Amino acid sequence: DKPFVLIAGPCAMESRDHALEMAAGLSEICSLLGLGLIYKSSFDKGNRTSINSPRGIGIAKALDVFAEIRATFGCPVITDVHAPEQCEPVSQAVDVLQIPAFLCRQTDLLLAAGNTGRAVNVKKGQFLAPWDMANVAQKIGSTGNDNILLCERGTSFGYNTLVNDMRSLPIMAETGYPVVFDATHSVQQPGGRGDSSGGQREFVPALARAAISIGVAGLFIETHQDPDSAPSDGPNMIPLKEMRALLERLMAFDRLAKA
Amino acid sequence: DKPFVLIAGPCAMESRDHALEMAAGLSEICSLLGLGLIYKSSFDKGNRTSINSPRGIGIAKALDVFAEIRATFGCPVITDVHAPEQCEPVSQAVDVLQIPAFLCRQTDLLLAAGNTGRAVNVKKGQFLAPWDMANVAQKIGSTGNDNILLCERGTSFGYNTLVNDMRSLPIMAETGYPVVFDATHSVQQPGGRGDSSGGQREFVPALARAAISIGVAGLFIETHQDPDSAPSDGPNMIPLKEMRALLERLMAFDRLAKA
Amino acid sequence: DKPFVLIAGPCAMESRDHALEMAAGLSEICSLLGLGLIYKSSFDKGNRTSINSPRGIGIAKALDVFAEIRATFGCPVITDVHAPEQCEPVSQAVDVLQIPAFLCRQTDLLLAAGNTGRAVNVKKGQFLAPWDMANVAQKIGSTGNDNILLCERGTSFGYNTLVNDMRSLPIMAETGYPVVFDATHSVQQPGGRGDSSGGQREFVPALARAAISIGVAGLFIETHQDPDSAPSDGPNMIPLKEMRALLERLMAFDRLAKA
Amino acid sequence: DKPFVLIAGPCAMESRDHALEMAAGLSEICSLLGLGLIYKSSFDKGNRTSINSPRGIGIAKALDVFAEIRATFGCPVITDVHAPEQCEPVSQAVDVLQIPAFLCRQTDLLLAAGNTGRAVNVKKGQFLAPWDMANVAQKIGSTGNDNILLCERGTSFGYNTLVNDMRSLPIMAETGYPVVFDATHSVQQPGGRGDSSGGQREFVPALARAAISIGVAGLFIETHQDPDSAPSDGPNMIPLKEMRALLERLMAFDRLAKA
Repeated sequence: DKPFVLIAGPCAMESRDHALEMAAGLSEICSLLGLGLIYKSSFDKGNRTSINSPRGIGIAKALDVFAEIRATFGCPVITDVHAPEQCEPVSQAVDVLQIPAFLCRQTDLLLAAGNTGRAVNVKKGQFLAPWDMANVAQKIGSTGNDNILLCERGTSFGYNTLVNDMRSLPIMAETGYPVVFDATHSVQQPGGRGDSSGGQREFVPALARAAISIGVAGLFIETHQDPDSAPSDGPNMIPLKEMRALLERLMAFDRLAKA
Repeated sequence: DKPFVLIAGPCAMESRDHALEMAAGLSEICSLLGLGLIYKSSFDKGNRTSINSPRGIGIAKALDVFAEIRATFGCPVITDVHAPEQCEPVSQAVDVLQIPAFLCRQTDLLLAAGNTGRAVNVKKGQFLAPWDMANVAQKIGSTGNDNILLCERGTSFGYNTLVNDMRSLPIMAETGYPVVFDATHSVQQPGGRGDSSGGQREFVPALARAAISIGVAGLFIETHQDPDSAPSDGPNMIPLKEMRALLERLMAFDRLAKA
Repeated sequence: DKPFVLIAGPCAMESRDHALEMAAGLSEICSLLGLGLIYKSSFDKGNRTSINSPRGIGIAKALDVFAEIRATFGCPVITDVHAPEQCEPVSQAVDVLQIPAFLCRQTDLLLAAGNTGRAVNVKKGQFLAPWDMANVAQKIGSTGNDNILLCERGTSFGYNTLVNDMRSLPIMAETGYPVVFDATHSVQQPGGRGDSSGGQREFVPALARAAISIGVAGLFIETHQDPDSAPSDGPNMIPLKEMRALLERLMAFDRLAKA
Repeated sequence: DKPFVLIAGPCAMESRDHALEMAAGLSEICSLLGLGLIYKSSFDKGNRTSINSPRGIGIAKALDVFAEIRATFGCPVITDVHAPEQCEPVSQAVDVLQIPAFLCRQTDLLLAAGNTGRAVNVKKGQFLAPWDMANVAQKIGSTGNDNILLCERGTSFGYNTLVNDMRSLPIMAETGYPVVFDATHSVQQPGGRGDSSGGQREFVPALARAAISIGVAGLFIETHQDPDSAPSDGPNMIPLKEMRALLERLMAFDRLAKA
């Protein structure tokens, strides 16, 4: 029943300067609000819709920047891993490993992530029922690592559309693991723009409020100072300058939900 | 931004005595909580899963009971209509006509309901996108009656299952009409028990809280002193004795959402 | 294992002349091909997307035209009914009563249709699992009328989209009743054009072929000499001039499926 | 417009003896029928529902067996790859690399598979619209390898259920690449048995017939001499002894579809 933790940052790590700037912005907001922050960014976008979309800064550069963010802002960091062999090196520099939704059934990746001893945040696959996440968690748990978070980010609903079944939050919570709500990927429209994904940024506040009122341990939001120029997931990211007001409001719902 | 109104009662009107007892119970709770109540019951279950399921008390008897409830408890009443010719007589005894979800595209029924001048609560069809409710409302509005409520009660999601897309609340609100959340039919499992529908009563509090936190004008909950013995929709109704605590909690979220 | 029967005609009866012209065209094709024809048209479009769309010619005029078509072309006719009180008069002039998909759970309508003694073709609701049609058939069967056809016309799949689960054909056939495949409503995109439904006429041949190869008793296709000018369902109707080649090809698959 | 090729074999390679026995059985049937065969088996089940389910024989042993099958029966072989680094070694021993549905958006895997120069069969993700497979194919095609097959194996439809949208076959064919229909995974019920997937073997013949009648370049069917004892996907595999009759029937529909 502790306040939710915020997992936030730009979808992709664009450069050292951009990452530090975003981390500074988020860090300042969270510190003003008294909100725990885990800084998020991806070093590689390994499953873009199109081959022509940019991939990212790469693992080596990113790990240095994550280390600098940790040292400078004193906040934990999270990033996603795509292959078993990435888990060990990434775990040297980040606090939480994240398993992408498409990969949530890949046993070797789950075991490698579990074996690092780091916390692991697994996104529920768009193709998976919430009760099936118990099997996913058990794979990680089989390594002796019980530091697991389960994350709702939408379920396939027809084509190019996701829906949040809010029942997934209490269903996944029955596993005993903390549940995170990913408010920005939930409004993604996969493949919705033909050769990239669309998104409905305007529904993020409503969906986040719904999830937080039901009760979650964490809130995942991707943000950017200029989402429409971001290299990925722009249509669903929240402008950084709107984050403070949004979070302040959500914290009130969180306090009520946990009162 | 007024507090939500409660639309509540047992799914089916079982008898005069049972209806008065339920109305008394709900009326007492709402009066203690300072919550507006619209008493709901059906006089005919015209679309049961099976031909062997009971239908209801009938229109004539029901209208007398509705009149008595109005007089005794001073609360408005709502019931659902299934055919155009029912609208006029029903409108004599009830304050709000309700259009069942399966019938939300039946033009003649919508027009007849609109023509009574009474408020009309239309359930969004399980087969309809939320933006398509603008066309439904326009049919009613074409009668010159703008006293329309739009109600979310779940959308088809695979077989025998509904999902609430919570985006439907702000989407339907864009019409300018008040939006109601039906928390008990949303957890219905249509046809889920073979020859009757199942339900997941345990998710009602979470879904209601989510909807109210986003912001709704009305909350629809079916309730019964003994749901497991009710003639219809037992698996999704909330026991009357749990209503007070549930509503009290939801009112706190409502105040916060509208602060 | 008899050859499939064709249920075909324009979505709406537009005028006596148009109906006779269409019936003449279809009758000629079917007679050349040796294919049984049931002429289909609606006298009222009672559930249009928008209030501003035309409704139809009306029941009285239509029944006269149906009688004339029967007499002139010697083929049975089918039309859809929307209210219990329509069933008896309509049954005087048509051979098969059709229950629209949205209304497939309305008990009174099913009973009234059954009580006419006429054959009844029920469309599976877009919101219904195929196994739930056994309950629907049982409602009609309770009148002692076992002359029932069950019709696949697509299932809700996300928003504004239908999908044919081809498993529905053998599942519905387990009831023992003949199964019809509606190839043109299956490609409807409900509400897909904002204030009217869209459609994907180009997929009709493939879906019809799939259904016929699995094995069906009837094939339902709406057709028009100029679909793009038709008052309803234009985007999914097949041009009359393409019907002969389409049917000839489908008959070959039908013969093989039943060999 | 050539006859369809059969891709068949047991889901998992169980042992050298079992693989040779299955290959012998399939080879004999296909040779009698004059049907092209690509022998399929997996060396590793990398995304089982549960951590307690067996994984497989491993890559090294499997490659030897594939080589032996090729040499003994003169038929090409196909197996699925799960990581980029597997592609090169696997391509030494097999003719077609297969990309699992969950992994169909993983750019590195697609590129590595494409770079081998071998044919690549990509399963459409359960979470993907058929038109989004054009982007997937373009990733492989960017390596200069145009030997690509696109495979329909069902789309998420509610929870624990897949549906085949048969429109996906002509939609994917618009890319110009050959389309394969996977008749046994299409009837999988993912996670349907709690800690393993269920399946509906009884619908394989109907769905295969539907797809073949629409027209496909390949048919994928998993088979086993005793499916109910198979280590994986038993509920959806077809008994080997039923394959001959099934294929013979399907070949008649294929000839008609391509006449």
